[in-house]
Amino acid sequence: MRWVRYERNGEKAYGILEGEDILEVRGDPFAGYERTGTRRSRKAVKLLIPVEPRTFYAAGLNYPEHVMEMAKKHGTQPNLPKAADIGYRANNALIADGEPIVIPADAGNEVQYEGELVAVIGKKAKHLSESDALSSILGYTIGNDVSERGWQREDRTLWRAKNADTFKPMGPWIETEVDLDALETIVRVNGVETDRFRTNHMIFGVATFLARMSRYLTLYPGDVVWMGTEGAPKNLKHGDLCEIEITGIGTLGNPVLREGL
Amino acid sequence: MRWVRYERNGEKAYGILEGEDILEVRGDPFAGYERTGTRRSRKAVKLLIPVEPRTFYAAGLNYPEHVMEMAKKHGTQPNLPKAADIGYRANNALIADGEPIVIPADAGNEVQYEGELVAVIGKKAKHLSESDALSSILGYTIGNDVSERGWQREDRTLWRAKNADTFKPMGPWIETEVDLDALETIVRVNGVETDRFRTNHMIFGVATFLARMSRYLTLYPGDVVWMGTEGAPKNLKHGDLCEIEITGIGTLGNPVLREGL
Repeated sequence: MRWVRYERNGEKAYGILEGEDILEVRGDPFAGYERTGTRRSRKAVKLLIPVEPRTFYAAGLNYPEHVMEMAKKHGTQPNLPKAADIGYRANNALIADGEPIVIPADAGNEVQYEGELVAVIGKKAKHLSESDALSSILGYTIGNDVSERGWQREDRTLWRAKNADTFKPMGPWIETEVDLDALETIVRVNGVETDRFRTNHMIFGVATFLARMSRYLTLYPGDVVWMGTEGAPKNLKHGDLCEIEITGIGTLGNPVLREGL
Repeated sequence: MRWVRYERNGEKAYGILEGEDILEVRGDPFAGYERTGTRRSRKAVKLLIPVEPRTFYAAGLNYPEHVMEMAKKHGTQPNLPKAADIGYRANNALIADGEPIVIPADAGNEVQYEGELVAVIGKKAKHLSESDALSSILGYTIGNDVSERGWQREDRTLWRAKNADTFKPMGPWIETEVDLDALETIVRVNGVETDRFRTNHMIFGVATFLARMSRYLTLYPGDVVWMGTEGAPKNLKHGDLCEIEITGIGTLGNPVLREGL
């Protein structure tokens, strides 16, 4: 099942995507819902980010080749994470499928995509075991962890390197039926494939993260966990279109603009 | 004016604190409100955290002696931050005035308070100048940035060191009339004063942070910015009561428990 979030009569509402139609519901996938029987064309509505997270978690370094490539770029020794220590991103930076990534005027040229699987928490949960951790998940969506590498190297925190406005495209919807091992992530810039990797080829998998996180913290409905990216992402520039596809989920596409151009 | 948030007939509501009474309002301090004329005793209601932040910002190292003391403790060279680079904390960890800080069973003994001024954003804002930055603020509250120093030294991120459930007491209310230069922060453990400092003796002040942040990110009503702490905080243990007073704002008090004891 695919959950979309969209604007309906000026209000934010959830619906179920069926082919090219949205089936209207009362309620939402977290607290409960019922179908209204009304059906409308997906093309007639503006899709929103599929959830406004209460807490926005991000795994950061979580794929082996990405750790190697980032260390090479930063001129440091590769340092594989020893435990599933989660990080954070910020809600101000979220944009929906189709909305423009706007590169700040004074950013450098190393503004790069990172195609990521996003787990959306469906239930309040603490002290999950690895074997039941995935039961806390409503479904999965796609994230683009846009990053300005100069600021990432030089600032004391990741605040503007990863959390400038528009740097966190997320969507287009939440897919509830997912076989993690079958997924492939494919990145295209202007229609040309620039990266492809097994989505579940992570250093620490989704269940490992959720079990460790929930020893110390309560997961809440609507929390999101971005799972990191593989490889060596490429630069984005004004006029590009960046698409992240995860097979079985969908494609998140965003045009790129530079402020002031 | 002091804004409290509390439970009213099972719903979360804002009210205005006047002496020992709460004046009921319709609406809230962000979107607008009107007084209903109903007045109730503050003692008859349970106070909640004064806001659920959309984004939870934290300055981290922002007072000169604290930078020195933390470097000494970590066995590293003190490294004064060169710019107002903001960090983040997580909503799961927030608790209200009076609620217990629960130290996880496997935490070490270095679980410490950090008494902090918290700026609460009142208006959507971007590209603030330093001279108009404070106009985006609704008011100020108090935060206790509870930190487990072993995890802070050893983990790759601050996730459980600073964001374990209950590690972020915030409250008791939002004070809208504040003279930053007049404020003093006083910490007491079991009634004994353990720290006292000029609240505004920061490396980078509130206006400097907001101006720099808002060059790259949009501030939203209800965002909070925790401003860091001074000095060398002390350990907390099961059975303690930790109080953070900021003169002119109020006192945030929380008992301390250790899980499993």
